[in-house]
Amino acid sequence: MGRMLLQTAANYHVETFVLEAGKNPPASSLCHYFVEGDIKDYDTVYRFGKLVDVLTIEIENVNLEALFKLEEEGLRIFPRPNALKIIKDKGLQKEFYKQNHIPTSDFHLMNRKHELNSFFNFLPVAQKLRNGGYDGKGVEILRDETDFSKAFDAPCVIEKLVSIKKEISVIVAKNENGDTAVYPPVEMVFDPRYNLVDYLLSPADLTNEQVELSQSVAMDVMNALDSPGIFAVELFLDTDGNILVNETAPRAHNSGHQSIEGNYCSQYEMQMRVLQNLPLGDTSTIKSSLMLNLIGEPNFSGAVKYAGLEEVMKMKGVYVHLYGKHETKPGRKMGHVTVLGEDKNDLLAKADLIKDTLKVIS
Amino acid sequence: MGRMLLQTAANYHVETFVLEAGKNPPASSLCHYFVEGDIKDYDTVYRFGKLVDVLTIEIENVNLEALFKLEEEGLRIFPRPNALKIIKDKGLQKEFYKQNHIPTSDFHLMNRKHELNSFFNFLPVAQKLRNGGYDGKGVEILRDETDFSKAFDAPCVIEKLVSIKKEISVIVAKNENGDTAVYPPVEMVFDPRYNLVDYLLSPADLTNEQVELSQSVAMDVMNALDSPGIFAVELFLDTDGNILVNETAPRAHNSGHQSIEGNYCSQYEMQMRVLQNLPLGDTSTIKSSLMLNLIGEPNFSGAVKYAGLEEVMKMKGVYVHLYGKHETKPGRKMGHVTVLGEDKNDLLAKADLIKDTLKVIS
Repeated sequence: MGRMLLQTAANYHVETFVLEAGKNPPASSLCHYFVEGDIKDYDTVYRFGKLVDVLTIEIENVNLEALFKLEEEGLRIFPRPNALKIIKDKGLQKEFYKQNHIPTSDFHLMNRKHELNSFFNFLPVAQKLRNGGYDGKGVEILRDETDFSKAFDAPCVIEKLVSIKKEISVIVAKNENGDTAVYPPVEMVFDPRYNLVDYLLSPADLTNEQVELSQSVAMDVMNALDSPGIFAVELFLDTDGNILVNETAPRAHNSGHQSIEGNYCSQYEMQMRVLQNLPLGDTSTIKSSLMLNLIGEPNFSGAVKYAGLEEVMKMKGVYVHLYGKHETKPGRKMGHVTVLGEDKNDLLAKADLIKDTLKVIS
Repeated sequence: MGRMLLQTAANYHVETFVLEAGKNPPASSLCHYFVEGDIKDYDTVYRFGKLVDVLTIEIENVNLEALFKLEEEGLRIFPRPNALKIIKDKGLQKEFYKQNHIPTSDFHLMNRKHELNSFFNFLPVAQKLRNGGYDGKGVEILRDETDFSKAFDAPCVIEKLVSIKKEISVIVAKNENGDTAVYPPVEMVFDPRYNLVDYLLSPADLTNEQVELSQSVAMDVMNALDSPGIFAVELFLDTDGNILVNETAPRAHNSGHQSIEGNYCSQYEMQMRVLQNLPLGDTSTIKSSLMLNLIGEPNFSGAVKYAGLEEVMKMKGVYVHLYGKHETKPGRKMGHVTVLGEDKNDLLAKADLIKDTLKVIS
């Protein structure tokens, strides 16, 4: 994420600073100043913040206290620490939606596993750790009592399972002047064989009403968060036609990668505009697109290789983005591929071919 | 140029090395390893070449002897040093076109100014320094004897002036496997008020025959140069309908900047594919585009400011690329702007507005 932001930052008259752990993380070769350090550590984040004019994040688990202190001392931080605080804690996040009359599934907060015994009638649920979950980790689906053995024994939110018709994401942005922008909704396409999120289709295949409703809900979330920034609002379209907020990310997001080629203004260009309080960009679609994550294959760990890359690069309208990570492991996000096209069927056919061809191995 | 190549290189699993003079040149913050040094110096270039697996250039005046030595020792260099040698010397370049039956204007070589006296009947001519000319420098138009006072007294080529209808550029590429790619021709649009190159229009407004002829001449140039690489072949369409080669650049080129947004595969993506001997990309046009160089205004020198940037960024389909140069001076290329659109008139209207609005000052 940081890497793609830095690729765009190079179009502007700015100096870039990156704070990240490790000697040579992927973003370190694309910035003016790289600081090696732990983003969870108060002093590290505070000292880093003193180096810059404006600060943003690519992941939620940055030390919040340091961000609040920096903001108090006048640093421009987008998203604002308070918006990040609400979102970081999935319990607070759900309460925030409720308080702001933003449609979301019913939920309860709980601290210990045994409390599940009071919620038999509320099943089935998604149980989510309030803090530290990421990329599908920290979530368990509890359908009935037999699933309780895998339940978390920690502060959690349990969310009533929604009967999902489609999963949608809407990216929205706001600058300090209060200008706002909203992208066309994109759709997570599931593989019917495995019921796994398979690829992302932009724009989503929705009615005009569904588009307007999902965009308006996403704007409501951003406005209630009361912060400049770029936000990915993940939504469920349920089988009754309701739009419900699942989760919000207060940053550029996996569901916006295809905007680099598919939309006039990419999410990273938009983020750069937000950070500089420039007029926001044009979110319109140039071409329909499909985005496929490149995930480390099971049973491969170590120095990464991309088998089938040449074959895929022969295909028309295909863009490969490798993230510069040296080591693969099973399930690790190593890059993504965007396909541009006119027609959904053509995009889906190409995506299948790419999945069969390009493998992240070692 | 290097900077835009590095922005694209970040999509690949590669390590990047840059050799350039100065402490903090624009490309130094976007590579893994920056070496400060003089590209004209044999030892500097030779030692740098020993660090890398494949080498390319963004400007012609790299030490040729070092490149020949490195190639002899097995380094992959694209363009090949021999192709660079032909192109670097505008005299050799013209002789090369003649030997290879590539259409170009008539010319003579000369060493000293007084030799002009034998070429009265050959006037009017463009007199070009054989070596070291760049970006319009090292060229004088000699229409008659009264212009001889400004003539160069150095090894030069004098080229018979062509009655130009249009100036065109065609970018071509070849990888080590011998795959080739050719871009749609682009057109330099002149400002009728000042007869200055004003902006670049992609694709060029040509008949199908003219497109095919110009692409075929550009391919002939690349094939005769006998080198993998990316080449910008600048052409004249004369008032009789002939296509004549003006000059060739053995690298990504100013006339290909708009390909970043306007074509499926940008010239930088193409160059990355060439360097890795990957299949070449799709050169088709996504949208018509117009490219405008951002040039330092007369009478401004010093720390750069971009007046009117916000206004321009409000416009739809406009992409600003600033090159990260700290200081402006009159006539210095500081960046470029690409405009995407459907319609030539719309593009031209936007270009005029941008020119009136965005000013590079200090």
